[in-house]
Amino acid sequence: VPRIGIVGAGAWGTALAWMLAQAGREVVIWAREAEVADAINRDHENTPFLPGVALAPAIRASLDPATAIQSADIVLLAVPAQYLRGIVSRLGGGGALPPLVVCAKGIELRSTALMSEVVASVLPKARLAVLSGPTFAAEVARGLPTAVTLASEDPTLGRQLVEGLGTRNFRPYIGDDVVGTQIGGAVKNVLAIACGIVEGKGLGDNARAALITRGLAEMGRLAVAKGGRAETVIGLSGLGDLVLTCTGGQSRNYSLGVALGEGRALSEVLSERRSVAEGVDSAAATVALAGRLGVEMPIAQSVDAILHRGSPINDAVAALLSRPLKSEA
Amino acid sequence: VPRIGIVGAGAWGTALAWMLAQAGREVVIWAREAEVADAINRDHENTPFLPGVALAPAIRASLDPATAIQSADIVLLAVPAQYLRGIVSRLGGGGALPPLVVCAKGIELRSTALMSEVVASVLPKARLAVLSGPTFAAEVARGLPTAVTLASEDPTLGRQLVEGLGTRNFRPYIGDDVVGTQIGGAVKNVLAIACGIVEGKGLGDNARAALITRGLAEMGRLAVAKGGRAETVIGLSGLGDLVLTCTGGQSRNYSLGVALGEGRALSEVLSERRSVAEGVDSAAATVALAGRLGVEMPIAQSVDAILHRGSPINDAVAALLSRPLKSEA
Repeated sequence: VPRIGIVGAGAWGTALAWMLAQAGREVVIWAREAEVADAINRDHENTPFLPGVALAPAIRASLDPATAIQSADIVLLAVPAQYLRGIVSRLGGGGALPPLVVCAKGIELRSTALMSEVVASVLPKARLAVLSGPTFAAEVARGLPTAVTLASEDPTLGRQLVEGLGTRNFRPYIGDDVVGTQIGGAVKNVLAIACGIVEGKGLGDNARAALITRGLAEMGRLAVAKGGRAETVIGLSGLGDLVLTCTGGQSRNYSLGVALGEGRALSEVLSERRSVAEGVDSAAATVALAGRLGVEMPIAQSVDAILHRGSPINDAVAALLSRPLKSEA
Repeated sequence: VPRIGIVGAGAWGTALAWMLAQAGREVVIWAREAEVADAINRDHENTPFLPGVALAPAIRASLDPATAIQSADIVLLAVPAQYLRGIVSRLGGGGALPPLVVCAKGIELRSTALMSEVVASVLPKARLAVLSGPTFAAEVARGLPTAVTLASEDPTLGRQLVEGLGTRNFRPYIGDDVVGTQIGGAVKNVLAIACGIVEGKGLGDNARAALITRGLAEMGRLAVAKGGRAETVIGLSGLGDLVLTCTGGQSRNYSLGVALGEGRALSEVLSERRSVAEGVDSAAATVALAGRLGVEMPIAQSVDAILHRGSPINDAVAALLSRPLKSEA
């Protein structure tokens, strides 16, 4: 039985812990806040981040990230994207580290690096994979069927991780496009904010579907420019996650967009939330990366302008929906 | 001002009539049933098929399809797929016909022909285009922003039709992949039934997103085998319409799937409906076409087996969601 260390006790890390413990794995999870570690160890429930889900008593929480990975066979990194560098530098690189699986979705703002690039820059010898796909945490934590992409440049490691993490209801599909897989997970959160805005303004499902379609094209251009493959973008980690996030009411990024579309201020919406909406930072990071690579991403640019440059939301929406009549491609 | 003839007064034909009349076009619409023609001419509302939408009094309804196209500059064909051949043969081919725009989505069951092929076989000299994309009729009939693909092999005709049919809120994008555009519109209704079943069985949004992703891959294989292009399938008429139909509660095909997933019988669900759910016949026609072309379409085959071969729904769903752990592509 593989032992799993999970770094990050937000909704996603906790859902992964539930799912893996349910399938008989031994799980240790690192939590940043004592309140969260205590809730998991004492009440067997992560009340702040995944309330209502009964965790197996065997799941142990720790406040020291090095403890969570000690004697683990596989380590899942499930912290918010902008915190990943700081956490990874606390894992310690003394002995040989177990394989690290990036479960965070985003682009680092200060470097425009992908999550795997952040890890590799801190721990150059780490064996790495990324896990991404359409995964509402609350559904994984109810045992509902879920399929994800598990990408690694090392096919042997990929197969080992699929065996170690896969269960009857949680099915990883092996890929090798680490870059393309991560672009999907990062950009979809930005596009979800755009789709939420369209919903919040009452513009309808037709407009949202058109926006998702153009958004996938943007995502594909960035993935290819960054060295990924176009077919990855139409897989689970691209299209699958994009559709989930842009249509399912459970997405934090989508609901943030809805609130903005309804006329609320960003600062007000963020102040009411404890969880991170990855798309807020990823919008700026995506636009910066696209700029460096010379990729046109009008939707991501509009979202960034609304969030960070004070663009009037109506102007941005009008620009998005009223492109001139011309060929689709 | 171009004069538009619309053949078919269901929800979609009527929504197109509303939208075009709103934008100042002269519109004549053919209705099969006297009750519908009367309602449009007398009450200026298509109460049976698009209740609650006030139609411009200038919209005239007729019971003779030849009248609807007389002196029209553009004719839209918006009848159910399996009725298209019969209607087109009543248009008369005496004089030169105006350009015909196929707005029906489906594959003819008895011939496995696409709608454009059906029209061309009856009227070999017709100038043809197809219009397809993410278009809930009720939203078009409220003036909400909508983008569609308008595909024709004749680029001059394509541009003329975009001018004739486009408005500020209804934007056709020119394409030339008539085959790929139609495969999207036909197959998405079959996949919507599959997604509805998953929803009806309470399997969650993660499972639905994975099914949409695999469904798009099936759609792409069929489009390419039939002579269309893969990039069309990730455009408005493929991905866009697929996402709309598989996530929006307004789809007749999706809601049919939900009812089946909840355990109701097909005959019972169909008996309560006046409108056609295109996916029921398109499932069988899609599977037949895929068989002829040697294309694997496991999702469409499952839907066909449930609808037409008495397959137990639980077996089919289990087979869909529990494919062995292997590479995504």
